[in-house]
Amino acid sequence: MKAYDKKDFPVDKIRRFVEPGPIVLVSSAWKDGTNIMTMGWHMVMGFEPSLIGCYIWSDNHSFDMIRKSKACVINIPTDDLATKVVGIGNTSGRDIDKFTRFRLTAVPGTKVEAPLVEECYANFECKLVDSSLIKTYSLFVLEVVKAHVAASPKYPRTLHYRGDGVFMISGTNTSKYRKGFRPQNL
Amino acid sequence: MKAYDKKDFPVDKIRRFVEPGPIVLVSSAWKDGTNIMTMGWHMVMGFEPSLIGCYIWSDNHSFDMIRKSKACVINIPTDDLATKVVGIGNTSGRDIDKFTRFRLTAVPGTKVEAPLVEECYANFECKLVDSSLIKTYSLFVLEVVKAHVAASPKYPRTLHYRGDGVFMISGTNTSKYRKGFRPQNL
Repeated sequence: MKAYDKKDFPVDKIRRFVEPGPIVLVSSAWKDGTNIMTMGWHMVMGFEPSLIGCYIWSDNHSFDMIRKSKACVINIPTDDLATKVVGIGNTSGRDIDKFTRFRLTAVPGTKVEAPLVEECYANFECKLVDSSLIKTYSLFVLEVVKAHVAASPKYPRTLHYRGDGVFMISGTNTSKYRKGFRPQNL
Repeated sequence: MKAYDKKDFPVDKIRRFVEPGPIVLVSSAWKDGTNIMTMGWHMVMGFEPSLIGCYIWSDNHSFDMIRKSKACVINIPTDDLATKVVGIGNTSGRDIDKFTRFRLTAVPGTKVEAPLVEECYANFECKLVDSSLIKTYSLFVLEVVKAHVAASPKYPRTLHYRGDGVFMISGTNTSKYRKGFRPQNL
């Protein structure tokens, strides 16, 4: 398991870590409890403000914790955490304390009450800014209000879910198509 | 450029191609014109019905075409199409016919008016089922009504956008964590 040295990162640029589509861990706190869930259904919805939309099923223990506390942290795990990511996604916070069970470190958020998962490559502290779409679509609209990102590597090895228990690990990175971009699109 | 032999695919299972987070091409038709755009901001929003949410900026030429025709096709390109994907994302359908310029083949949709991009690994014919979130969030809620997916390879080499002109190419696939899943979660 890696130990990342993280730094503040501009919230309007965190889309570069979300847009490639990694599985994320969502951590939350409500009253005396905390929880972590594994999530694959999310998207960038803007960068000023920095918005992330995500689908959280009403059966998830995190659903009410995030809805009531109006906050969570989106954490980006790297492939060294794969076993824990699967464990977290296949247990419920109703039955166990996930930080304890999976030996992960809860670090207090600086702008929200929810805890960061220390072992992850990046942590995005989020406020629930629109809960009006939860009933219809289980869609939580989150604003990233503070971002912590590892100083290196520049491109993390992330986990991407292919369904049926199969993960894709992020592969090679290339800037060879960069010359085809208009400057304002970079 | 690959030529894929595609087959009908169950729409409730197409999330396995969307959830890993690939860049997609969105094709549409309105009146006498067609268009293609490159898109990275999308998410699975359900599988029964098979819903995809996506952010389309109002400045995009496709915005009105999809809003008015209430249909589009989400096409999944593989890495052999990277140059075309970048070209499509850095030009406008106001100025050029993208199928012609990028030498791509438009195949008529079977359930929607929008054309499929033949050279892509998969094509999902979509209906715009909820346009009420376009004004606030530029969010189009699409239902996949018909899916065409290449018979092989099982796992395509997709493009994932890291920002700043850099793409990640999908890497290795592993089922070694599959034993950690509860059967109902597979």
